[in-house]
Amino acid sequence: MTARVGVDVGGTKVEAVAVGGDGAVLARVRRDTIRGEEGVLASVLAAIGSLAEGRSVTGIGIGTPGQVQGGIVRNAVNLGVTSLDLAAAVSARSGAPVRVENDVNAAALGVHAMRGGEAPLAYLNLGTGIAAGIVIGGTPLRGADGTAGEIGHVPVDPRGRECPCGQRGCIETLAAGWAIAARWGRHTDHPVREVFAAAAAGDARAVEIRDDLVRGAAAAVRVLALAVDPAVVVLGGGVSRVGEPLLSAVRAELRGSAAASPFLSSLRLEDRVELLPPDANPGALGAALLAG
Amino acid sequence: MTARVGVDVGGTKVEAVAVGGDGAVLARVRRDTIRGEEGVLASVLAAIGSLAEGRSVTGIGIGTPGQVQGGIVRNAVNLGVTSLDLAAAVSARSGAPVRVENDVNAAALGVHAMRGGEAPLAYLNLGTGIAAGIVIGGTPLRGADGTAGEIGHVPVDPRGRECPCGQRGCIETLAAGWAIAARWGRHTDHPVREVFAAAAAGDARAVEIRDDLVRGAAAAVRVLALAVDPAVVVLGGGVSRVGEPLLSAVRAELRGSAAASPFLSSLRLEDRVELLPPDANPGALGAALLAG
Repeated sequence: MTARVGVDVGGTKVEAVAVGGDGAVLARVRRDTIRGEEGVLASVLAAIGSLAEGRSVTGIGIGTPGQVQGGIVRNAVNLGVTSLDLAAAVSARSGAPVRVENDVNAAALGVHAMRGGEAPLAYLNLGTGIAAGIVIGGTPLRGADGTAGEIGHVPVDPRGRECPCGQRGCIETLAAGWAIAARWGRHTDHPVREVFAAAAAGDARAVEIRDDLVRGAAAAVRVLALAVDPAVVVLGGGVSRVGEPLLSAVRAELRGSAAASPFLSSLRLEDRVELLPPDANPGALGAALLAG
Repeated sequence: MTARVGVDVGGTKVEAVAVGGDGAVLARVRRDTIRGEEGVLASVLAAIGSLAEGRSVTGIGIGTPGQVQGGIVRNAVNLGVTSLDLAAAVSARSGAPVRVENDVNAAALGVHAMRGGEAPLAYLNLGTGIAAGIVIGGTPLRGADGTAGEIGHVPVDPRGRECPCGQRGCIETLAAGWAIAARWGRHTDHPVREVFAAAAAGDARAVEIRDDLVRGAAAAVRVLALAVDPAVVVLGGGVSRVGEPLLSAVRAELRGSAAASPFLSSLRLEDRVELLPPDANPGALGAALLAG
């Protein structure tokens, strides 16, 4: 039985799926991510190995954080990887052709497939950082330099907070996981949930942080809509796991800004925003589709 | 001899070209634009008619301002057109298949052809309003709703000026022709030239208007780079006709903002910005290519 294998390399887990010729998922595995070049390679090979048992693997796709160019991963800080030729190493060990892609682009392709090919589509990853994967004509938009979708660093307020990127008032300073955790200031695994809960209970500082998050996410949707005009913007990533309260607030923010603007109102942005289902793992699926 | 004909409908002139099978321009004509539905149709047919003499026209492409959907043009204020089924009317009179496209998208396709197919490419039209045409894989990006590239209405300053669109601090409030003319406040055909001249002579108000224009244009380039990552952003449109002083200032602004940001600096934005040659007419050429 032949299959394509897709691997999503995350900071804590490696998720992998085997996909049949019709795009249906045949099997899944999940492994802990071992950090560093050798660790990441071993984690990926282990996941592929267990899916390859009893199957002929015709191609492998891998989605990974960091800068990806020509199969090489660079500066994937979350993985402890400075530089790793993932395509060459995995291909040499597996004998199958390997495609490596930015994890957000791979996830966007997975979301696109899950939703039946709606297009153009944007997947807005609200994680530690913020970036979007954009699918046009069934293909992730990579751009000339691999930075398509890096809208977290669009400045939206000249008097805004400093961003570690060196600019001021970037969307990330409002809505990225790093910004929320830093402003909330407590050592916790779930700063966004805590902020939403405290804001709902009336904590003024939490309200401010939550409202900035919502304004930042809405600004990202607006930039995507005006630049690329996707049929849908699907919110995913760690920050989005707070779920329905975030979606409702982002929709309300978009509705509010449209109320004063017939132009914005005509774009119906609040109707285009959706939430990734909490149990979905589009990254591995999208990576598998890239393989083939 | 067969040819495709491309027509660019402007507020004052209709420009048209006949293009051979190899994409080379065989002939050009220019006519005054007559306003209103009947006037625009007559102007377009006259231009096509004079190019069709002695040629078999295999297809016609038309770039026009306004909202374009399924060959119908709506709300083209500059042309005095409320609603016009341009594709049906021109096809009935010419017997050739007709494609109608947004003028900025058609121009972007023309620029793409003039530059030998570089991609992705963005054509940033700094005219009365601001919009970009984005060419990906040789095709203009239209988006789900025909609003791809409408980056003039991305808000970049929550305390910025009110925009007629109903938002505040849109890129257009800084850099659109309408905003510059309104702020300069003199009845003149060339407010941008006057502002640049007065600013160079030290007029404080002109310096402020000029610097806002430059900041707005740079913000538009940044949004395009981070969302779509084009290999090149070509500046065109009426405001860009002030020429080299604008290009130098936009490049300096992009260089300045990158100086504080290793991330922005790695994008080399100032090297990606170029100016449309002053005698170029990419709109008609792009429209002809759409025909085929």
